[in-house]
Amino acid sequence: MNKPTLLASIITLALSGCAQFAPSYNADLIITNGEVLTIDGNMSVIENGVVVVKDDKIIAVGEAVLAEQYRAPKLIDAQDGIVMPGMINTHNHLPMIAFRGLGEEGISNRLFAYFFPLEGEKLSRELIYNATKLGAIDLAQSGVTTYADMYYHMDEMAKATKEVGLRAVLGQTVIKFPVVDSSAPYGGIEYAQSFIDQYKGDPLITPAYAPHAVYTVSKEKLQQINQLSKQQDVPVLIHVAEFPNEEARIKEEHQASSPVEYMAQIGILDERVVLAHGIHFSENDIALVKQADAGVAYNPMANAKGATGMAPAWEMYRTDVRLGLGTDGPMSSNQVDLWRTLSYASTMQRLKHDDRTIMIPEQVIEMATMGGAKALHMEERIGSLEVGKQADIIIVETQSANMMPNYDPYATLVFQANPSNVDTTIVNGEVVMENRQMQTVALDDVRSTIDAMEADISAFAKELAKKAIKSKSLMD
Amino acid sequence: MNKPTLLASIITLALSGCAQFAPSYNADLIITNGEVLTIDGNMSVIENGVVVVKDDKIIAVGEAVLAEQYRAPKLIDAQDGIVMPGMINTHNHLPMIAFRGLGEEGISNRLFAYFFPLEGEKLSRELIYNATKLGAIDLAQSGVTTYADMYYHMDEMAKATKEVGLRAVLGQTVIKFPVVDSSAPYGGIEYAQSFIDQYKGDPLITPAYAPHAVYTVSKEKLQQINQLSKQQDVPVLIHVAEFPNEEARIKEEHQASSPVEYMAQIGILDERVVLAHGIHFSENDIALVKQADAGVAYNPMANAKGATGMAPAWEMYRTDVRLGLGTDGPMSSNQVDLWRTLSYASTMQRLKHDDRTIMIPEQVIEMATMGGAKALHMEERIGSLEVGKQADIIIVETQSANMMPNYDPYATLVFQANPSNVDTTIVNGEVVMENRQMQTVALDDVRSTIDAMEADISAFAKELAKKAIKSKSLMD
Ligand SMILES: [Zn+2]
Ligand SMILES: [Zn+2]
Repeated sequence: MNKPTLLASIITLALSGCAQFAPSYNADLIITNGEVLTIDGNMSVIENGVVVVKDDKIIAVGEAVLAEQYRAPKLIDAQDGIVMPGMINTHNHLPMIAFRGLGEEGISNRLFAYFFPLEGEKLSRELIYNATKLGAIDLAQSGVTTYADMYYHMDEMAKATKEVGLRAVLGQTVIKFPVVDSSAPYGGIEYAQSFIDQYKGDPLITPAYAPHAVYTVSKEKLQQINQLSKQQDVPVLIHVAEFPNEEARIKEEHQASSPVEYMAQIGILDERVVLAHGIHFSENDIALVKQADAGVAYNPMANAKGATGMAPAWEMYRTDVRLGLGTDGPMSSNQVDLWRTLSYASTMQRLKHDDRTIMIPEQVIEMATMGGAKALHMEERIGSLEVGKQADIIIVETQSANMMPNYDPYATLVFQANPSNVDTTIVNGEVVMENRQMQTVALDDVRSTIDAMEADISAFAKELAKKAIKSKSLMD
Repeated sequence: MNKPTLLASIITLALSGCAQFAPSYNADLIITNGEVLTIDGNMSVIENGVVVVKDDKIIAVGEAVLAEQYRAPKLIDAQDGIVMPGMINTHNHLPMIAFRGLGEEGISNRLFAYFFPLEGEKLSRELIYNATKLGAIDLAQSGVTTYADMYYHMDEMAKATKEVGLRAVLGQTVIKFPVVDSSAPYGGIEYAQSFIDQYKGDPLITPAYAPHAVYTVSKEKLQQINQLSKQQDVPVLIHVAEFPNEEARIKEEHQASSPVEYMAQIGILDERVVLAHGIHFSENDIALVKQADAGVAYNPMANAKGATGMAPAWEMYRTDVRLGLGTDGPMSSNQVDLWRTLSYASTMQRLKHDDRTIMIPEQVIEMATMGGAKALHMEERIGSLEVGKQADIIIVETQSANMMPNYDPYATLVFQANPSNVDTTIVNGEVVMENRQMQTVALDDVRSTIDAMEADISAFAKELAKKAIKSKSLMD
């Protein structure tokens, strides 16, 4: 054995010695040092925890020591941060972000004065694509990793959402009127079918049907959509029990005592449905929803702003209905992120029940994550930090003045945090934002497009405002 | 005349020519290019406006061209920003920020399980000073330039508040029990007198009396405080009509039909008083408050979180009561900034009155600024951007995703903005924060002190939590 060979042997030996302490498993991303809220079945919190990601999935979650077992090209130090599942916004009409802030001057006929003229005049494929991009950036920057939406031209929404890198359940609207993407009534069914063909199986986009409501879609079409959704195994998003007059209409037209009962009667209340609002749910409605295993999107801030009421969310939570949080569209709550909605979810139920001990922060965060996943029937894939789940993770910093002290991470999140405290957003294993810097599409990339859109709409809206104020003064 | 002299003459002539176009007036600070919300009597908005500051006062407000008339060593370009009066938080117990986030697990006896033991064991001069510093930084970073507070050791609060550079009305608590800063009942009166002597006339601090409530301070002491407040010309801060049982107590003990009526009867409801909450005000109470020209602090988020109710704020607003917004203490709403409270101010009134057209964003912003100034009887000095007012100004950026579009600045502020959108905070002419960087006391300066405080309280609170949960299970 000559000297160089001996040296090589010694080096080999030394390296194999090291190998005992070297990481054994390959991963793509390791998050260390954070306070990990797993939102698993036990609501386990790991004070100094580790989350390991490979490809699009979480492959390990545990104590600090776990990090030693993995090697990955990307490490994120979540020191002083809260690591949690990305939030899930279960009800939105995201492209209406193009119109948010309009018609806020206190007119009673806002629907006719703003909504319809704006959508009639300004909605286009292009606006839907551009507005979705702005909205998706806003969502990503505020820690929402999945959103469910009911709107038009869902292929444009899908495209923009994927570019930003978010997950979404996108329901193509079906309604009895001609709309922007269909000159024929109910054209949304056909549109949805081709959209579903295009996106079924997509890693980020879950295509869906979105019949607008039971009073704007006929019984036959609701049943047809239900059949199609079964065949194609896709969700159905629908507005239910948002307004007090829905019940009277249903009683008169369909001899059912509530929209939910009507849905059950005609066989369309099933485990693929997501019901938005449910403000006027009766006990029996809740029982039917529970029995059908349908999901519910609770929109407490939007419902307060629009004075539509307080849904029986505590009752649904207590009876283990699939219940998630939503913002409704940007003309309703004017926010796409869930931060204020978190506190509204708690405070509205406390006022409704005259009980300050209910809907505590831990329950609210559960609702905003795992609850949302359940509402969207996606709890096998998202909603918690558990092995095998898709890697949808956010890191929330706790070092800003508004986040101090941080005795109880759930309380800190629900009552102190705001969107700017979200430091990092990961969707499907991809880092969408890190240190508040967007990694996919930056706001500056779309700023000039958005500014042009705003200028165009602003000019049109000024005319609408003049008419609205005129009609208001005529009514006075 | 030799050549150099001729040249000098020509230069002198040229310069004097220039002088016609040069600024004529000296100032200290000029803010340009912003969308200026003046909150003057006409709610004037100047699209591309200028605000000029000299010493501690606003000396000019107007269109862009105005900037040419002034020269100042400091210029702030508010391009794409909203320039508005600093917000006024009319009710707080700021040092309780040391405890915020504790006792949020849904226990019914929170007052006895947390509040009293924490204040009994952990309150000290030092804690009050340090916690006020953290709280004042949080306030400054979120655009609150003036806050009103009821607590203990107000000289410590004054010191910390002045270091951070905020304006405050600081009410020394008077109560019938021994408390942290007085072993004798009602020791707060004496404490207040020396505090008032020390701070009367201070440019930033308005010292005040803070009798806790009509049921915790005797009639004689309330009347004594009223007399002293007249002699010393200082405000009186008091909790009123926060709880439903106050009325019954007053009826039983004092033969008055409400706390407000009792205050009027015993001669202590006057133009120096600021009433916090007013949740259970009757029509007659509101009329009495209006007649006395007293102020009211409306705390919609705290009142919702604590399930205490919805004050008749719309009624007070409509009858032109001096009405401002507050957060209550950091164990009540968990926020010291007003951003969420802005939306609660609107949404709670809309739910209460089943009317989505009331309490519009413009009215809410008026309440958060000029309304607060009126509530604190300081409308001659603060609350609007008008010539002669103290220079308390904030700049809110509109270029983040959550601020886009910005069709209606009031709606953008009330329903889209969060604390992190506040870019610049100016108090009494001094720049406290610029480009989100604190210019007076930085959070990092106090971080280690705050961390130590948090660690100490956290250990103690864990013991309280165990007892609280135990007593909860005993009650089940
Ligand atoms: Zn909706
Ligand atoms: Zn209070």
